[in-house]
Amino acid sequence: MSESDESDGYERLFADPVRETMDGAAYGTWRAITAPDAVSLAFGFPYPDALPNGKVNEAVDALLEIDHEDALQYAGGDYADAITETVVERTHARGIECTEAEVHVTNGATHALDTVAQTFLDPGDTIAVEAPTYMGALRLFRNYGVDVEGYAMDENGLDVDAFAADLAAREEAGDPLPKFLYTVPDFQNPTGVTLSTDRRERLLELAETYDFLIVEDDPYGQLRYDGTTPEPLKSLDEDGRVVRVDTFSKTIAPGIRTGWVVADEAIVRELDRINAGGENVFTLGLIARYCEATDFEADLEDLRAGYRERRDRMLDALDSRMPAGVEWSEPAGGFFLWVEFPEGIDAEELLETAAEEGVTYLPGSYFFHDDRGSRYARLSFSYVTPEEIEDGIAALARATRAALPAVEASDD
Amino acid sequence: MSESDESDGYERLFADPVRETMDGAAYGTWRAITAPDAVSLAFGFPYPDALPNGKVNEAVDALLEIDHEDALQYAGGDYADAITETVVERTHARGIECTEAEVHVTNGATHALDTVAQTFLDPGDTIAVEAPTYMGALRLFRNYGVDVEGYAMDENGLDVDAFAADLAAREEAGDPLPKFLYTVPDFQNPTGVTLSTDRRERLLELAETYDFLIVEDDPYGQLRYDGTTPEPLKSLDEDGRVVRVDTFSKTIAPGIRTGWVVADEAIVRELDRINAGGENVFTLGLIARYCEATDFEADLEDLRAGYRERRDRMLDALDSRMPAGVEWSEPAGGFFLWVEFPEGIDAEELLETAAEEGVTYLPGSYFFHDDRGSRYARLSFSYVTPEEIEDGIAALARATRAALPAVEASDD
Repeated sequence: MSESDESDGYERLFADPVRETMDGAAYGTWRAITAPDAVSLAFGFPYPDALPNGKVNEAVDALLEIDHEDALQYAGGDYADAITETVVERTHARGIECTEAEVHVTNGATHALDTVAQTFLDPGDTIAVEAPTYMGALRLFRNYGVDVEGYAMDENGLDVDAFAADLAAREEAGDPLPKFLYTVPDFQNPTGVTLSTDRRERLLELAETYDFLIVEDDPYGQLRYDGTTPEPLKSLDEDGRVVRVDTFSKTIAPGIRTGWVVADEAIVRELDRINAGGENVFTLGLIARYCEATDFEADLEDLRAGYRERRDRMLDALDSRMPAGVEWSEPAGGFFLWVEFPEGIDAEELLETAAEEGVTYLPGSYFFHDDRGSRYARLSFSYVTPEEIEDGIAALARATRAALPAVEASDD
Repeated sequence: MSESDESDGYERLFADPVRETMDGAAYGTWRAITAPDAVSLAFGFPYPDALPNGKVNEAVDALLEIDHEDALQYAGGDYADAITETVVERTHARGIECTEAEVHVTNGATHALDTVAQTFLDPGDTIAVEAPTYMGALRLFRNYGVDVEGYAMDENGLDVDAFAADLAAREEAGDPLPKFLYTVPDFQNPTGVTLSTDRRERLLELAETYDFLIVEDDPYGQLRYDGTTPEPLKSLDEDGRVVRVDTFSKTIAPGIRTGWVVADEAIVRELDRINAGGENVFTLGLIARYCEATDFEADLEDLRAGYRERRDRMLDALDSRMPAGVEWSEPAGGFFLWVEFPEGIDAEELLETAAEEGVTYLPGSYFFHDDRGSRYARLSFSYVTPEEIEDGIAALARATRAALPAVEASDD
């Protein structure tokens, strides 16, 4: 008979992928990176005025008045039923054809990625990600016991040539090909860069050639502050290769945590089946009503104005304050930009001085599946005021300058 | 190079457990069992007046007024923070000691079970369930590629002697022992029966002896209409063997889909980590505020009165109308009772006549992992009015009578 005297000893009972990742941090632990009186350039949150408290309250009133008790019942009422149609409309607004049968609604984009992961990944499978990539996705993919291959990026997004070369080499060597590529093509988290149209087309060809899917995570696509947006991968997708993930978190509010997948009907059927329960029909009804009552495009214009001002202020502050040798991306949209410090500066070590100077950020290590992140930082301009951005970048510049002499000395 | 010319051909890309269960029905498909003008004894829903529209609306008003924009932000405001404390209070009210570190909040009980399954189950593992058991749990466990062993029940719940004998036989034969036993100990879905206290104690001993966990799913425990409730398995659990699942779906509303797990801190740590994203802090804040503002125990008394009346009406109607040879359970709480038809009546076939007569129910086959269900039906008294219950049972009695001569004929 089995023995179990250790009070903490559940390891033998956990699933293999859980046991193998037990030292990992939980989703959201990065939110603990704060410091007293410091400006947070760490939080990838909408700024408070972007959150539509009044309209949400009105939507709840209307939902409860019109759908009565059905609004709180298991299956929801007419507004909850309308969520799929609402999502189809939002998807059409991005230039993507889709039917209701191609939509799977989830509790936010990360939950969508989790359901996609559960639907496609067996332990030992390989997946491809951008390096760096969204830390929440990295963490959840690890939960599935898969090998994560990270491919480098430049100012036009994923380096598709390098990716193609590796795929060819893998096939040649008989190494496993990825089940899917996970990409944030527009204003990527964390780098802020956008995948060019020719690379999007090339990726779709590669997916067909090497028989993998492309998981397109697009939370920021509608938040472009200048220039024109390339077509989403899903709208270029003629072979059903793209599993697209979108969310209301950045266009309505993250607290109502609702996202969706657009994919081939045969995939959506399995996502529906695998994603057992957990559908908050009250929230779904609220969102459908909200979208019916608001002018979504006008709301987006307001949001773009608020974020554009913040982005511009951050870029200006970086230009005027940062010492030579520090580089950063210039995002045309989204919430983030990506800083590369000169050799010898470790962004995780720098965080301590920076916090003392009055600013926090997320060190690059969060965004890599390996140890490539030490010289990078993600700065978010989405949450704080333009004035706080100015102060935060000034503090970061002071901290960087203080670290620089040590770098120069070690170069001697 | 791989080829993929079939438009629907994603099978090779799906995870193994998904591919193996692709013919399965999606969560909630049982809700499609309806018929025009028929009374639904199929829906395990709260009755409409049980749903607190006014109080939910007030809670939203207060949440948005007090927590301002934080209510809609990623991390939520003070009320969302208070959800764990709220859950601890609700758990204490069930006589269970627990701390905030022993609580993991989920998007409802089914989502809780899904997270527990992902945390503990590898493909090929064995789990034990009651036969019959909750169909939503059965479906989601199948998604993990595990062997499901079903153990018979009687009027005191799971037949623990038979379970113990099988565990001993499995150990003797070197067959796999279960990772966990899934049980609904109070007013089980679908049978309505309650596990006796001595069997609860025996189960905990077995869990220790054979090194498995007990997943206690307790959505109905507070809805007892007469007699006294045995202590929950979790409150008897001295060795951290019980992973308890509870929900607000039956005590506030299912549409806000919020549940939780109470388990050893070491287990909760992994549940927190595995359950990536998807936390609807708006709903969590709403619930915390709702619980702060309401008299929860008084609300429960009102709910008990409403459900008690329905249960009594159903038992009376069955007594006065059903032909001899039909048997049913007499639940002391919950939403359901379980009907056994005489040999020769197939509950799935009977459903067609019953729907014509004016009633629908869920055939027993939904609740078994094998083909043991053909002579059973789950009747729910929770959703419809007492008058509809009367009409529904009358219709079921007519349908049963019409089927009986055929039985007797085939016995000749």
